[in-house]
Amino acid sequence: MSETLLETIDNPDDLKRFRESELEQIAQELRAFIIEIVAAKEGHLGASLGVVELTIALHYVFNTPDDQLVWDVGHQAYGHKILTGRRDVFHTNRDLGGISGFPKRSESEYDTFGTGHSSTSISAALGMAMASALKSEDRKHIAVVGDASIASGMAFEALNHAGVSGADLLVILNDNAIGIDPSVGALKYYLTKTKSGKETGNDNIFESLNFDYSGPIDGHDLPLLLSELKRQKSLKGPRLLHVRTVKGKGLKQAEIDQVRYHAPGKFDKITGEIQASDSSKLPPKFQDVFGHTIVELAQENEKIVGITPAMPTGSSMKMMMEALPDRAFDVGIAEQHAVTLAAGMATQGLVPFCNVYSTFLQRAYDQIIHDVALQKLPVIFCLDRAGLVGKDGATHHGIFDLAYLNCIPDMIIAAPMDAVEMRNMMFTASQGLELPIAIRYPRGRGKIVNWKQPFKKLEIGSSRLLRKGEKIAVISIGPVGTMIEELLDQENLACTHLDMRFLKPIDQKAIESIFENHEHVITIEDGTTIGGLGSVICDLAAGFNKAFAKAETVKIHKLGIPDQFIEHGPTADLYKIAGIDRESVLKLIDRLL
Amino acid sequence: MSETLLETIDNPDDLKRFRESELEQIAQELRAFIIEIVAAKEGHLGASLGVVELTIALHYVFNTPDDQLVWDVGHQAYGHKILTGRRDVFHTNRDLGGISGFPKRSESEYDTFGTGHSSTSISAALGMAMASALKSEDRKHIAVVGDASIASGMAFEALNHAGVSGADLLVILNDNAIGIDPSVGALKYYLTKTKSGKETGNDNIFESLNFDYSGPIDGHDLPLLLSELKRQKSLKGPRLLHVRTVKGKGLKQAEIDQVRYHAPGKFDKITGEIQASDSSKLPPKFQDVFGHTIVELAQENEKIVGITPAMPTGSSMKMMMEALPDRAFDVGIAEQHAVTLAAGMATQGLVPFCNVYSTFLQRAYDQIIHDVALQKLPVIFCLDRAGLVGKDGATHHGIFDLAYLNCIPDMIIAAPMDAVEMRNMMFTASQGLELPIAIRYPRGRGKIVNWKQPFKKLEIGSSRLLRKGEKIAVISIGPVGTMIEELLDQENLACTHLDMRFLKPIDQKAIESIFENHEHVITIEDGTTIGGLGSVICDLAAGFNKAFAKAETVKIHKLGIPDQFIEHGPTADLYKIAGIDRESVLKLIDRLL
Repeated sequence: MSETLLETIDNPDDLKRFRESELEQIAQELRAFIIEIVAAKEGHLGASLGVVELTIALHYVFNTPDDQLVWDVGHQAYGHKILTGRRDVFHTNRDLGGISGFPKRSESEYDTFGTGHSSTSISAALGMAMASALKSEDRKHIAVVGDASIASGMAFEALNHAGVSGADLLVILNDNAIGIDPSVGALKYYLTKTKSGKETGNDNIFESLNFDYSGPIDGHDLPLLLSELKRQKSLKGPRLLHVRTVKGKGLKQAEIDQVRYHAPGKFDKITGEIQASDSSKLPPKFQDVFGHTIVELAQENEKIVGITPAMPTGSSMKMMMEALPDRAFDVGIAEQHAVTLAAGMATQGLVPFCNVYSTFLQRAYDQIIHDVALQKLPVIFCLDRAGLVGKDGATHHGIFDLAYLNCIPDMIIAAPMDAVEMRNMMFTASQGLELPIAIRYPRGRGKIVNWKQPFKKLEIGSSRLLRKGEKIAVISIGPVGTMIEELLDQENLACTHLDMRFLKPIDQKAIESIFENHEHVITIEDGTTIGGLGSVICDLAAGFNKAFAKAETVKIHKLGIPDQFIEHGPTADLYKIAGIDRESVLKLIDRLL
Repeated sequence: MSETLLETIDNPDDLKRFRESELEQIAQELRAFIIEIVAAKEGHLGASLGVVELTIALHYVFNTPDDQLVWDVGHQAYGHKILTGRRDVFHTNRDLGGISGFPKRSESEYDTFGTGHSSTSISAALGMAMASALKSEDRKHIAVVGDASIASGMAFEALNHAGVSGADLLVILNDNAIGIDPSVGALKYYLTKTKSGKETGNDNIFESLNFDYSGPIDGHDLPLLLSELKRQKSLKGPRLLHVRTVKGKGLKQAEIDQVRYHAPGKFDKITGEIQASDSSKLPPKFQDVFGHTIVELAQENEKIVGITPAMPTGSSMKMMMEALPDRAFDVGIAEQHAVTLAAGMATQGLVPFCNVYSTFLQRAYDQIIHDVALQKLPVIFCLDRAGLVGKDGATHHGIFDLAYLNCIPDMIIAAPMDAVEMRNMMFTASQGLELPIAIRYPRGRGKIVNWKQPFKKLEIGSSRLLRKGEKIAVISIGPVGTMIEELLDQENLACTHLDMRFLKPIDQKAIESIFENHEHVITIEDGTTIGGLGSVICDLAAGFNKAFAKAETVKIHKLGIPDQFIEHGPTADLYKIAGIDRESVLKLIDRLL
């Protein structure tokens, strides 16, 4: 097999050695290369296929990395990685120790800004552009941002500032009318209607913000892209180039079923067919338990509404959007708005389930405090993808929620050990709470096949004593409890195991009893050891509460996410790194026995 | 003195009994009433004066509280409070036990949504409107939002959703070109240029978002307001009415010096003259120490830049904006953008001081984690108004920062005890750190008159042993340390006192030594007891670290903000309520001795 052109490209300088007329072939090869690797190794497909031409054109026209390129979110940056020195390691994408699925500063000088969460690129690139201006450097700054991401508040803040900054900033709006799910919101319709050709005056929404607007142009037309980018390179000041692309471009099924092919898992690189797997007998994903359960609850209680900020498929809120379309809402990438919208609804007696990924709820921290908890509004937060999420890595782990929520007065914080408990917590939350509650659960499948049990109302703040042993007690919260149960069973260990269930209010009485009857207490959680369950137990034990007279003789062993960022890789490996895997717990218990 | 019309108005029904032609007189009386009370009692003046006519017209035309009115931020809601049953208690505004300076649900059914932070009103009102639609209720929903607030990302998210929601929502844009400081950003210029009269097509930025746009109209022209609001009342769907007002309207000085008269303190109700007070011999405000110090540092180091999200005057970043205008930036109410902009600048080797009020940094929590800490970018956060802020109350206390920052890996967290320490921390931070740092300090004056000492570089993570005693050790962080010093001095108590200085990294060695040599450890901080210094000490003491063999014999007493929201009132009173005042500490020490 003769060498492809792509194989000769180790950096953008290599790319620049080709004639413009050869770039089309490179685009085909790059697309094929992405498809080949992702088909076998999994990963994000559609976004990168959509920007193959744009990626090539950008690196061909601009002088990266001296000119600084920021990819928003970063799902679309595979082509960029391949053209900037990472072709040979691209097959390690998202593996433990392999390259990251997102741009990452420590990985390459071409990755000017680490991304993962959306809508940061304009702020970051503007910061770089303003720095260049202060340092009198002559370099260009480019943010590539999707139409779903630019509709998020943070991006608007950046545009509003950039428009009066005078900074030399090119924003490329990669408009494909879809994020992970189809884009929503008024701006999406506006962009769809936008026609090519300059209008006069301050007509365009971006021109209103003092941007020099161009487009829309076809983002798969390489010659057009090249000429337009060359023109843009010669300009100064804040400007926006509107490029229309097709997500999944070049793989027919990916173009047709864009949601499924965002991250399709393994598929046939020729036919595009996704590898079928019979999951009918597997325990369901927590996501699907959420989806089925909210539909079940909402069919019985017309006050229940559902809100998702741009994750209908990922969270399975889609099930409710299909079953009860008038009462389930995708509000776009707008976590802040989602939370306060839910608060507004709660003031009217509705029962809003606001489903947000744990890591994305960080975007709405102030709204939880200021709009929800301070007003004691009974919003039900379902925090999906709590804990270590695996291959998405450090930007996406949901490990801070226990800590950042626990300091908020009047929050109820729950973490079910399994799907049955999760359903009961959702049920309990829907039965007229007078305070907000967060129910956090992990990405992926649980262990219980027969998850659909009759609902049981739980007492808020109650723990479950799963087994009574001696000397050593394990206090767990969340799904690690299932692992502990299996471990104690299989190793026949006579330890006590308390499933905390609720971090707040904490079941002080149960903990008191544990401390009275054991020598060692092991706390375990899939969240930060700082500020989570372990800290709460230490707080109690350290003697500020007189009830724990015996606490002085008990040793506490805190297991959880250590005080460091955990990288990407298979979840099982990450659990080991964090020391919250079966083996680490067993080793500790062995040592203590 | 004969009764005024205003004195006969206890609720909007009373208001509606007057003829339209009498409303002008009521406006005059309402304005005079606000001026009279605020002149004597202090509070927010300019914003409420600007919306006197709008407030009257809204309550006259709409059927509040059945029609639901949400005031953004709430600085401008004094007139609303006075017309809705709180005229007689308005003199208790912001007092301990008195009415809140902001709308508050628990205070009145007319306060449909509690506010304080900006840009939440559209989300909240939309939530209410969607709830009404689901419940087939026929009521109107109105959000009144300023031009500075609507430029914040969260408001854009809400507009983007509302535009496609079909909800019956009226957004009134109260455009006075100023927030607390003059508005900034591209949208401000756009709004300034907006001319009255319908344009054709989708020209207007709000029409782009599918809002029915009307205006701009003169917000002090009562007949015009009444007729336009009546028209708006008859419409459905998302619509925006652009109203131009003058902040401070009706008090000449307040119209001229709008920044100063936002909250002028005591002033003469006739002349408007602000009561002069000779503060030249008082210790400076921490804010001014920040302002002077950043200018001093930046004049020596050209890499230093300053960023404030809309608080140049409040934070004293204005000093740098005046001294070094090319290197200090007000980015508007855009905390998310501010933080990531700083991160972008830090990638280029600049040294950004990002000054954000502690309570507002909650808006940028994700950006701190995802854009700053994860990338180990040495952004310097100066968190103003940390701790209990006094009369602004529950929405504004900066009490969560220690907890929500401590769980983030690679953050340095510092809290100076006094102005000299603060300057040294700022100096130290500017000397080439390789990690981000947060320096938190309170609102108001310190205790040191001779604050301008030569800079001293501190060792990151080092504490200060201020005095060595026996039996009892006080470990403090932040300005409460000064109170402890005074107390121990004045009462001649032989306690040890450790000023922690840094919450993270924590000076484990110093704590170890304390635990080895004392029976009681009192921790004290002006942040939540959950997750702050007290928790960290308990974590250490509870035995997860073997170094603390003797910890078992030491009793820990945690003082800090208890797990509840603290309301408004004089700071000294709030300290008592929280139990972190001199008397509470003395009582505890007396009991332990």
